Formats: sequence, C-alpha cells, structure tokens
Amino acid sequence: MIGIKDIQEAARRIEGIVHRTPVLSSSAINEATGARIFFKCENFQKVGAFKMRGATNAVFSLPDEEVGRGVATHSSGNHAQALALAARLRGTQAFVVMPSSAPQVKRAAVEGYGAEIITCEPTLAARESTLAEVVARTGAHFIHPYDNPRIIAGQGTAALELIGEVSDLDVVMAPVGGGGLLAGTAISTAALAPQAVVIAGEPLGADDAARSLAAGHIIPSENPQTIADGLLTSLGGLNFPIIQKHVQAIWTVTDDQIIAAMHLVWERMKIIIEPSSAVPLAAVLAHGDDVAGKKIGIILSGGNVDLSNLPWQTKP
Amino acid sequence: MIGIKDIQEAARRIEGIVHRTPVLSSSAINEATGARIFFKCENFQKVGAFKMRGATNAVFSLPDEEVGRGVATHSSGNHAQALALAARLRGTQAFVVMPSSAPQVKRAAVEGYGAEIITCEPTLAARESTLAEVVARTGAHFIHPYDNPRIIAGQGTAALELIGEVSDLDVVMAPVGGGGLLAGTAISTAALAPQAVVIAGEPLGADDAARSLAAGHIIPSENPQTIADGLLTSLGGLNFPIIQKHVQAIWTVTDDQIIAAMHLVWERMKIIIEPSSAVPLAAVLAHGDDVAGKKIGIILSGGNVDLSNLPWQTKP
Repeated sequence: MIGIKDIQEAARRIEGIVHRTPVLSSSAINEATGARIFFKCENFQKVGAFKMRGATNAVFSLPDEEVGRGVATHSSGNHAQALALAARLRGTQAFVVMPSSAPQVKRAAVEGYGAEIITCEPTLAARESTLAEVVARTGAHFIHPYDNPRIIAGQGTAALELIGEVSDLDVVMAPVGGGGLLAGTAISTAALAPQAVVIAGEPLGADDAARSLAAGHIIPSENPQTIADGLLTSLGGLNFPIIQKHVQAIWTVTDDQIIAAMHLVWERMKIIIEPSSAVPLAAVLAHGDDVAGKKIGIILSGGNVDLSNLPWQTKP
Repeated sequence: MIGIKDIQEAARRIEGIVHRTPVLSSSAINEATGARIFFKCENFQKVGAFKMRGATNAVFSLPDEEVGRGVATHSSGNHAQALALAARLRGTQAFVVMPSSAPQVKRAAVEGYGAEIITCEPTLAARESTLAEVVARTGAHFIHPYDNPRIIAGQGTAALELIGEVSDLDVVMAPVGGGGLLAGTAISTAALAPQAVVIAGEPLGADDAARSLAAGHIIPSENPQTIADGLLTSLGGLNFPIIQKHVQAIWTVTDDQIIAAMHLVWERMKIIIEPSSAVPLAAVLAHGDDVAGKKIGIILSGGNVDLSNLPWQTKP
C-alpha cells in the first residue's frame, strides 16, 4: 500500500525538476460559491499538467542500469508529454504508443520532447499488443499513466504542497479519471490534513468512479462522453481501494456545468485551465449548501486546451 | 514634474487595496526570444488591469471633504471599471460618461461596481460637454484616465514592484496608449534601475507616440486602427515630456505580430492577457538581435478580453 512516506520521498525526488506551482484564490469566485477556495495551479506545471509530477517520480525512481533502456507508455494525453519530458531530463529515451487517430498537435508535442512515437490502430487490443512489442524490442520500462505506485506517489505531491501552504482546509478536491491524482491527493490529505474530507469531481458522462464507489467494486466506463477529455479513462485497480478508504464523496456534474465553471475561472482569474480542471469547481457551484463557509483546496489539474476550439465559442 | 517620491508615496497609499501581482517567466518564451523575460502580471490586478493602481491612488489621494462629492471620468475601458471600484472602496460615488456605442458588457461591469453611467453621443464634443455637466451638477472630482499626475504615479507602482523583485534588468518595457503607464514605468526605472533602458511597444496602426517622439512634439492619432483596443488613445500632454526624457525607443508592431505574441503567452504561460498586453512581447520577438541575452521586464497591462471572440478563432 502506498503511504505518505512514498509521497514525501517523491516530493524530495522531483524537487527542482518540476515546478512548485502557486496557490491562487479569487474573491469573485469565493462570492459566487460562498466558500473560500484555494486553487493549486497545476496548469502552470511543466507540460501544462500535474502528470509531470508522477512521470518525473517514476522515471527518476528507476535505477541507472534500468533507465538506460528507456521508458514506454501508451497515451495520447498529458501523460505522454510528461513521460517524454521526464525521460529527456533523465537523459533516456521515451517510447510512446499512440493510436493513429491522435491529433497531429499531440503527436508534435510528444515528439518535441524527443520521444519516439509508435503508431497503432485505435483499439485497446492494438494498443496493448503494440506496447508489448515495444517493451520486448527495447527493454524499456513500462510506466502506466495512473495505475502505478510511483505515479500515484508523484501525483500526491500537489496536495502535499497545497496542504503545506494552506492550513485548516475543510475539504480537498480533485477531478477523477483513472484515479492517480485522486488517490495521491487522498493519501496526502488523510495523513497531513486529517480534519479535511476528500471529495472528487467527476463528469456525469464518465461517472464510472462514482458508480464504482457506490457499488463497492470497479465498474469500467462504457462509451464515456464528456468534454473533460482527461477524465475518460476508467478507474485503476491500484487506485480504487485507496479511494474507497479515503474519499468521502464523488460529486458528478454535467458538461454544461463544467463549461460554465471553466469560463468563470478564465473570466475572473485570467488563467487558462482545461475542462478536466474545472470539474471540482463545477461540483462546488452545484453544492452551495454543502460548501457554504468552507475552506476548500482544489487541484487544478492542467491547462492544455485547443485555443482555437473553445467550448463557449460560436461554432463556425 | 512627477518624481519617484510620488510613486513611492502612491505605493504606500494603495498597498493592501490593490493586489501586489506576481512576476512570472516562461522557459519556452525565453527560448523563443533569446532573452530572459520577467512578466509583471497586471492581468491579475483587481478589475483585470493596471488601471486599478492609478485610479486607487487618485481616489485615495483626495481629501475627505472633496471625495464626498464623488469622482467622475469619461471612459468605456478599464479605467472606468477601476475608478468605479476605487470609489466604492473609498465609500464614494463614481460617475462615468460613456458613449451610447459602448458594449453592454462594459456598461454592466461598471454598474456592477456601483458607478452611475451617464450616456452621451459617441463624439468627443458630446463626451466633454456631458462630463462638464456631470461635474457641474454633482461637484464630483474629474479624474482623467491618463493625463493626471496621481494616475501616472499610481501606474508607476507596477514597475516599482517589478524592479524591487528582479534585479539587474537591462530593459523595462510597457505598451503605450495615452502614456500613463509608460510615463510611470519610465520614472520608476530611471530612478531605481538606472542601468536599464525603457522601451515601449506600440501598435503600428496607432503609432502616434512613436511619431510624436520622432517629431519632438505631440502628433495626435487620426483614425487609429488596431486590435489592441486599450492603446487607441493619443499621448497625454503631461506624459509626453516624461517619455521624451526617459524612454529610449518605441518599437511598433503589426496586429498580426500582436496576435501571435498574445497566442504564445496563452499557449505557453496559461495566462489570459488582452491584446494591448502582448505588444511589448511582440516587439521583443521582432527585435531578436537587439534583445539577445538581455534581462527584460515587461508589464503585462491587463487581461480583459471577450472570450467568445478571440482573434485567432475561426470566424462564424
């Protein structure tokens, strides 16, 4: 079981390699919610997302004799960029399996950090077989995007910093997709801010974590649909028991609520966050009675959006 | 003549009323420019712009017996919002003369801060006569958006903070419209970072400051056209001699260059800036040879943009 010591060790390992991101607040948003909210700005993190923490912890945990063969993953999202950059900073090669359907801009970003992309058919089976081939051919170390103890420990360092900076939080919130960020956040909070409850925000169109928590066993997503493209994945097996133990509630929100919360942050805080980041705030806005007067920490997970295709803009 | 003492006094006066904004930098932008740039983020200022500094200094400078009759201005931009909020914080009334052509969203923002809006025809003559009527009727104190010593001193506090935080700057930059921010920035820099040169960025489509500096006398704008809507005004009479004395160069840039620089900041820094804010960076990007290796401070003037109408988005 991953514990707070793993997260503290991760924090020491990644210090100076990843950014210590700022904590911001907004009087306008506090007025709108009736709560006092402290936003941990992982949108300012390297590669624009918290994923850099876990990837860096995983890559820099590998012993020298293993890391030389490189690291590998399958992802078309922020984890791919994070692993590519972490590998470059460690002086090794990253191999990233991406479906042929991945947007060119995401391929370019990963290649920009020096990773080698291996294209596969856009199916789960092709992704897994291609990854297995890459690992067999290169000897690279597979680093799963979220179902990996080093990844979970790295993601937990964001809440560790937040709790160290803002005392007496009543609530700590993160979005949930695969659950790496939420599990790490929950471990940090349970150990270092035990007075606080941990609440996740989840898109209603990808609510496998809420349903899994209610059922007591993992129920994978089937055809999830949400604008929060970082939260489409199903909960990881390692993360689920941690979430069961330490997360008090998962609040689901619609895409319209996510877009409204995202717009509010852009408009009033003048910072760019991606839809996934807006999910916890959307949940707070929908639960006014529960959060009134509370001191709430929210992990803003990332800021990677297509600026030419924003959800509130008039469609051409 | 306004001096550094006026700016230091303004800094003490507005402390705790306006935000001390952060200074951010971006390794991606440093790589793109070949310089080391430190951005003073007035987009995070109250009302989303540096204008809050000058307005607060002006309103809080008024003696109690004068401030009770309120303050007045003509503006449909950030100064109007700033004066409205500063007046509310001082417990007095703001009267804002706005042309009937002003967008409803700007009227709503000013009214949201409790100001009274007086609508006039969209001509310079109507604006001035309406303002004169308002001042005669109410006894309110007129606070010009930029051609006012208290405003200039207030705007100079942004550079004061930047210079206090980042030592050994080679260049300090601000955009120039009416010249209040540039004049204040120039006074702070000349006094506190005398090793640095002051360079303004100006849109080519509203280049009255560049032409005035070259001619040695003020040449007002005629039909200025630029996406940098905060920089349409002509240079103020009070600001011009300060700029002549302390500003080494004004670099002009096209709207395409402004939009590219603005997009770069959004994309890589994940912060929202308005087109006017992007003008100095656009100038840096266009002057690669002049800025290579230099340590540059840039005032990002504000972050108020219409999020549903961005310059790079596909037109419907």
